[in-house]
Amino acid sequence: MDDVKIIEIKKSIFEDNDKDADALRGELKRKGVYLLNLMSSPGSGKTTTLIQTINRIKDKIRVAVMEADIDSDVDAVKIKEATGIPSIQLHTGGMCHLDAEMTRQGLDNVDLADVDLVILENVGNLVCPAEFDTGSCRNAMILSVPEGHDKPLKYPLMFSICDVVVINKMDVLPYFDFDLEKCKEYIHMRNPKAQVISICAKTGEGVDAFANWLLNEVNNWKN
Amino acid sequence: MDDVKIIEIKKSIFEDNDKDADALRGELKRKGVYLLNLMSSPGSGKTTTLIQTINRIKDKIRVAVMEADIDSDVDAVKIKEATGIPSIQLHTGGMCHLDAEMTRQGLDNVDLADVDLVILENVGNLVCPAEFDTGSCRNAMILSVPEGHDKPLKYPLMFSICDVVVINKMDVLPYFDFDLEKCKEYIHMRNPKAQVISICAKTGEGVDAFANWLLNEVNNWKN
Repeated sequence: MDDVKIIEIKKSIFEDNDKDADALRGELKRKGVYLLNLMSSPGSGKTTTLIQTINRIKDKIRVAVMEADIDSDVDAVKIKEATGIPSIQLHTGGMCHLDAEMTRQGLDNVDLADVDLVILENVGNLVCPAEFDTGSCRNAMILSVPEGHDKPLKYPLMFSICDVVVINKMDVLPYFDFDLEKCKEYIHMRNPKAQVISICAKTGEGVDAFANWLLNEVNNWKN
Repeated sequence: MDDVKIIEIKKSIFEDNDKDADALRGELKRKGVYLLNLMSSPGSGKTTTLIQTINRIKDKIRVAVMEADIDSDVDAVKIKEATGIPSIQLHTGGMCHLDAEMTRQGLDNVDLADVDLVILENVGNLVCPAEFDTGSCRNAMILSVPEGHDKPLKYPLMFSICDVVVINKMDVLPYFDFDLEKCKEYIHMRNPKAQVISICAKTGEGVDAFANWLLNEVNNWKN
């Protein structure tokens, strides 16, 4: 009953990923489908954030999720159980990122006529996914409080390509040396236009702001 | 005063990294230098763990540290300030891992006649560093409580190649859904021989066990 579709992604011959990504974005625009590329470190709370977000928007727009992982299907099963929306698992077979062609392999298994928003949960990694345009309309990332506020200094590319940075696990702020103002300052050093949204995915606090940003994005994309 | 040496690592032409790594290990054995490759996600507490560990062993053996990072020198400066031992920063220029040749470029800047132990703090990433033998004597990794106990299911290769898994941030266990016994079970599914050591790097609790393991390793290597 909780079986999810598992797609084994094949390595693409990397020639001109940027061109490929632009072509994919063009196709998605014509079809009125918005693709969000969601990235983060392992364990930052991507899946829990998605569940909370999807449950806030699924009555307003049609959503599907692609969960990329090296192995296992725990995330896709979790999403499907908790939200009821279509969720497929992409196995990268050891590969540390998805490019546009690999993303397309995943999208081939989604009924695009039937969705407004596809969320791609990229492989948990702050380095490699930042280097490959997936063809998404926007890049978002989650940084969790326990990881520390200095991460924009150490992973500059990731923060510079993200339109939104969600700061998760705000409930444990008292137990960590995490300076939220400094973190925002470092993020804006990398990308002055990045939106920063603080949330606690476990309790749902702050998730409305992210959900509203996403709804607004999807509506703009379709018009 | 707190300036540290920064080495810009060049990309190596990957031909036979395993052979290269074996050659490097052989050289280190002849010179009586033990190399530890320390890996983890971003923000798991590698640097704090190193500071606590080094301060427990630096009067018994001679230690040097190589901090690999895509950018910034915050870690090397922190280590040098907190322990006084030689610490150099390796810039990978966007690369997500170190291989044996890149490790050798770093070691060329360490006075090997003057050290017993070199600790390589690899790039924060649970995927790519696991694929490349650095020439180290042992692999160790740090998994922190906020990342979740399911990580060995999602990053199988990393856990299968590590001789020691240090579980850090045990002080925040009450605030997270982290099942230590389940985590150990998952780690041993990947590598039945892996040692698991629970610590809190912030307070120093449990670090003695890791420091003693390391001292023992270095002494065995030199004999």
